[in-house]
Amino acid sequence: MKDMLGRGNAVDVQTSLNLLMENLPHKLPEEKIVNTEDSLGMICSRNVVSSEDLPAFIRSTVDGYAVKAEDTYGATEALPAYLNLAGEIFMAESPVSHLPEHGAIKIPTGGMLPQGADAVVMFENVQPVDEKMIEVLRPVAPGDNVIQSGEDVGKGEIVIEKGRRLRPQDIGACMGIGETKIWVYDRPTVSIISTGDEIVPAESSPEMGRVRDINSYVLSAMVSDSGCIPYRKGIFRDNYETIRGIIENSMADSDAIVISGGTSVGTKDMVARIINDIGSPGVLFHGISLKPGKPMIGGVIKGIPVFGLPGHPAAVSVCFDIFILPVLNILSGLKERFPKYSRRIIKAKLSKNISSTSGREEHIRVMLEERDDGIWAIPVLGKSGLITTLVKADGTIVIPLNVNGVEKGETVDVRLF
Amino acid sequence: MKDMLGRGNAVDVQTSLNLLMENLPHKLPEEKIVNTEDSLGMICSRNVVSSEDLPAFIRSTVDGYAVKAEDTYGATEALPAYLNLAGEIFMAESPVSHLPEHGAIKIPTGGMLPQGADAVVMFENVQPVDEKMIEVLRPVAPGDNVIQSGEDVGKGEIVIEKGRRLRPQDIGACMGIGETKIWVYDRPTVSIISTGDEIVPAESSPEMGRVRDINSYVLSAMVSDSGCIPYRKGIFRDNYETIRGIIENSMADSDAIVISGGTSVGTKDMVARIINDIGSPGVLFHGISLKPGKPMIGGVIKGIPVFGLPGHPAAVSVCFDIFILPVLNILSGLKERFPKYSRRIIKAKLSKNISSTSGREEHIRVMLEERDDGIWAIPVLGKSGLITTLVKADGTIVIPLNVNGVEKGETVDVRLF
Repeated sequence: MKDMLGRGNAVDVQTSLNLLMENLPHKLPEEKIVNTEDSLGMICSRNVVSSEDLPAFIRSTVDGYAVKAEDTYGATEALPAYLNLAGEIFMAESPVSHLPEHGAIKIPTGGMLPQGADAVVMFENVQPVDEKMIEVLRPVAPGDNVIQSGEDVGKGEIVIEKGRRLRPQDIGACMGIGETKIWVYDRPTVSIISTGDEIVPAESSPEMGRVRDINSYVLSAMVSDSGCIPYRKGIFRDNYETIRGIIENSMADSDAIVISGGTSVGTKDMVARIINDIGSPGVLFHGISLKPGKPMIGGVIKGIPVFGLPGHPAAVSVCFDIFILPVLNILSGLKERFPKYSRRIIKAKLSKNISSTSGREEHIRVMLEERDDGIWAIPVLGKSGLITTLVKADGTIVIPLNVNGVEKGETVDVRLF
Repeated sequence: MKDMLGRGNAVDVQTSLNLLMENLPHKLPEEKIVNTEDSLGMICSRNVVSSEDLPAFIRSTVDGYAVKAEDTYGATEALPAYLNLAGEIFMAESPVSHLPEHGAIKIPTGGMLPQGADAVVMFENVQPVDEKMIEVLRPVAPGDNVIQSGEDVGKGEIVIEKGRRLRPQDIGACMGIGETKIWVYDRPTVSIISTGDEIVPAESSPEMGRVRDINSYVLSAMVSDSGCIPYRKGIFRDNYETIRGIIENSMADSDAIVISGGTSVGTKDMVARIINDIGSPGVLFHGISLKPGKPMIGGVIKGIPVFGLPGHPAAVSVCFDIFILPVLNILSGLKERFPKYSRRIIKAKLSKNISSTSGREEHIRVMLEERDDGIWAIPVLGKSGLITTLVKADGTIVIPLNVNGVEKGETVDVRLF
């Protein structure tokens, strides 16, 4: 069945997403080597393997006395173990002395244990007798209060797996083993094409009947946020040759293409026709059971994903999150363990009943409000064509395909922007 | 009561944080003007007020026919309203024609309504009779399927409030009203000082007894992530004059100072003494009922917040999140509506019993694992001195001050890194 504009039956979100994923190219981005300290947020392209043990020596984790654990067995406050003070270890010095029998050597946190010692007694569990002797009031087992050589990272161990987006602690771990350079993937590039005869650049004063471009800036910022590089290609007339030309041009310099706008009657169908005309597999879906976002087009041309987005800002935001972001993650080489939680989610109580048209997944913009009895999610009223509904909103809630609505007071997951 | 190292009783996290907040300077960062399209993630320093209505004219939100609503009242499929076709509106053109009585003008989504029309009937609810007449099968009310002039943004309305971190949609809204330049705050600068006689730079091969700097790189990346500018000042000996010198030097070029390491016995107390010696109010707390992170120092010198962090990477990460990030947000001029949810939180079931020492807030690193029955949080074993426990972890769970532990299977909030 086709509707008046020749669109087929809308498919559901999961089916559309699967179609896209099945048709993505199986190639990874180019690699480059960068300074590890500059790699925050980049995606590691090779496993980082340690060429040494970290730490390289047994370290104390407390301020105390290095001992042989068996010398402390059975020690209690009533019946302490007496050990001979045999010197002190200073930071940054490798201990020259060997721990003598029934001896104890004073050691700071991080200090290197002397040979013969296998544990550290904390200061708190020691009573000095005189300058040459201490009482140990509680026993320690071998390995107590120390980090073993190689306990943090063993030589030959993988510290960072390729495909991970580098976090502060990942950079720290690389530095700890002396890996001050790291291989990362190049960032994919995304062309953003605005269409619509009524759209004018943001810096101009639109004549009556025209409006400024909003979506290409929203999309550009979302692409940057995802770690990719946006190319804003400009605003183009709703004309077959013009749009075909800029799509073909963008295929030469981009890893993905997003076409936004095209609100004129028939333009969406023209974009779909162009995608099919340029190459296979072409359009994979056109029309989704999703609100907002229903008229979205998803396709792949010669290995390059191409998206045709509806002109409404709210639809652009929802379609980016559901379809474009996961595709860009794959193109980036990301193999995140929990990519589906790419947005922060918080629980809130819904402030009013919401009814939803069964048969489509609905995304509702909400503001959060902290009240005495917890956090409430307040639906933002206003048409999805209004950019300010997105500005006022803190996030969205999703009403799944076959649910008719959510009742006031129900707890909902709010996906924060 | 003081312990062996002269530390007072540990205070709780909330009390320490309040002490810091009360002593922060009441000044905002310098401002600058930037291109709005480059302002993603920056903090807006002046309200953005619209100098015009958006949209500037009444627009259709659907493809259909512009009509006077009262001409459709009572229309049904059995008894439709007959209207005279009076032309077509094209995108990007201001309609010359006035809607005649009992007339209908074809209009695309986004098109400007002709004078005299106050609603749009969707194509779906219209049946063409011939080239000059249509049947309207369902009535519309005034305002149906249109966006009123100024409905998105009214002239004089505040679109973006100052103190907000700019998101993609905020940039889009500014562009929509032609605000292509925006005032933002300068990013605060944070000096990062590594101390410890045993610490060597990451690019060197440490001699026995020494270890490479990890924390200054972790901190630097966390500072960047927060939107501030890190200055890594280098590694300094545990010596009163040296450390006092670099803190005083950093006060001249930084908005906040973080001192990490100083694991030698007595160094923490030396850092506290230096903070008090340089200026007031000096040290605000030294020792917190927090694990890891107990020995942390927080202070303010002449309006500049100064933090002394324990040397363990896990403690650095926890202390940054609890104390430093909120302070940097305030120094940045941020007035976020929900800053406390600055980390993504997901619910998971705990994979094993965890006992906690009552009387301190405990942060446990966990890995997430998706199983058939949901997401499980698996505590990462290993001492808090190991950087790899942070690399393996996906996030942390918090066991509050007066809770003795959490049982296996209980649902916990995991704060993702």
